[in-house]
Amino acid sequence: VPLVAVQALSDLRTVAPGSRALETSQDRGTEKQFFVDLGLSTAPFRTISDLDELRDALGAVGAPAILKTRRFGYDGKGQVRIDHHHDAEPAWEAIGKVPAILEGRVDFDLEVSVIAARSFDGGVVCYDPGENVHQQGILRTTRVPARISPSLARRATGIAGQIADALNYVGVLGVELFVVNDELLVNEIAPRVHNSGHWTQNGCVVDQFEQHIRAILGRPLGDGRRYSDVIMTNLIGEQVEHLDESWSDPDTALHLYGKHPVLPDRKMGHLNRIVRRV
Amino acid sequence: VPLVAVQALSDLRTVAPGSRALETSQDRGTEKQFFVDLGLSTAPFRTISDLDELRDALGAVGAPAILKTRRFGYDGKGQVRIDHHHDAEPAWEAIGKVPAILEGRVDFDLEVSVIAARSFDGGVVCYDPGENVHQQGILRTTRVPARISPSLARRATGIAGQIADALNYVGVLGVELFVVNDELLVNEIAPRVHNSGHWTQNGCVVDQFEQHIRAILGRPLGDGRRYSDVIMTNLIGEQVEHLDESWSDPDTALHLYGKHPVLPDRKMGHLNRIVRRV
Repeated sequence: VPLVAVQALSDLRTVAPGSRALETSQDRGTEKQFFVDLGLSTAPFRTISDLDELRDALGAVGAPAILKTRRFGYDGKGQVRIDHHHDAEPAWEAIGKVPAILEGRVDFDLEVSVIAARSFDGGVVCYDPGENVHQQGILRTTRVPARISPSLARRATGIAGQIADALNYVGVLGVELFVVNDELLVNEIAPRVHNSGHWTQNGCVVDQFEQHIRAILGRPLGDGRRYSDVIMTNLIGEQVEHLDESWSDPDTALHLYGKHPVLPDRKMGHLNRIVRRV
Repeated sequence: VPLVAVQALSDLRTVAPGSRALETSQDRGTEKQFFVDLGLSTAPFRTISDLDELRDALGAVGAPAILKTRRFGYDGKGQVRIDHHHDAEPAWEAIGKVPAILEGRVDFDLEVSVIAARSFDGGVVCYDPGENVHQQGILRTTRVPARISPSLARRATGIAGQIADALNYVGVLGVELFVVNDELLVNEIAPRVHNSGHWTQNGCVVDQFEQHIRAILGRPLGDGRRYSDVIMTNLIGEQVEHLDESWSDPDTALHLYGKHPVLPDRKMGHLNRIVRRV
């Protein structure tokens, strides 16, 4: 989304989510600094605009680390891992010598995400935190509830609410966090419905999609309470053509996106397996 | 669906549901006789092919009665009510003098429907019976559970299973019944997912749509148990443009069909209100 277009449009019409959320989340450098300014913890990082800065940053952050373009990255794209200091130059070449951030590798216990919805009047409803497993930068599974303590879960939803408030956000927002010991590091935000919230389709009366529409239309937010323990599994690429075992379970609902063609890393659908009714 | 095409196709490929179900359900006369042959109770009826037969039938069935074309009727179309014996001729004109049935009016306590799914191996899963309210021949609301005794509910699902077996049916099937005192009269069947089963989208892990796909693909049928009490309300015509009160409830999920244009009797969407978690 061209940010200037959104900003110009918001002088004429209500735009939700607003330009602030786009501005913050579409640049990894701005986004990280926003977390820091809120007093939230993140992985160690440095913003990078040339090779010398990258070398300095590697010295400060240490290797292994991940070099990420500031803009246009998703599903692991625009990222390269740096294992040794002497790999700085090929890494800088690999991402196309564009403005970037270097992120120190975090040896996390698990990844969680919170799907929050905020209304025009400032009300916030959070779904229960989900526990995510990524492989090659792509989300593979989300399970709810996440295997974290109730107090950590409350802190995670509290952080999501704090971020939504700070952005004066309206709509559904995904917040990804790392759990390290008993600490939460904010990884990134997604100003939209999020793959890690797809479990809500079979776990809540009002799912994240309807919740977003309710929020941006100024309707009362829906009930976000979880009525089931769910494991969401993405169907990536050819997995969608091999459903024999995964979709035989009578407690598993299938969601297909109708995308063509099937490509190796393309998200083609997902399965929501109901593990237990709450 | 042209029946001969389905019959010809089924010589070449597996067709589910099969031609038997179409043949039976697309003709109200054949359908009623099928119920009778199964030993099931129906409203009193006569098949009609001319005005004399209609007059005789009115004598046998009594007035008020409903004259329905044997084919091409849905949502109250192709039907005319006859209140007096001398209205036979205008009624016969009104339906276009086509083959018809005359149905005696049933003073029922309530209408219920059963959504059943049957697999290739003969397994049947029934959703809990829903209680339906029609107005002007169009379904307005379905509530689950229906306000009938557990034994009557079991008889209703038993009848649906019996019908599905008799048709060697594969897929999802809707069966509408009248409750009169403690008796069940079969009204009609719909060889497909059915409006009165839309509550399953927010009341069951696997809804009627996925259940149908599972059945016709030869997959294990999904879990059809109800986890919530639901009231489904159709959004008919302009109701879809006046959601202010109905969609403010946080426990109500909205489903829109994306149909254009909005027409007075057109089903535009529905609301599933969760009354209680089971």
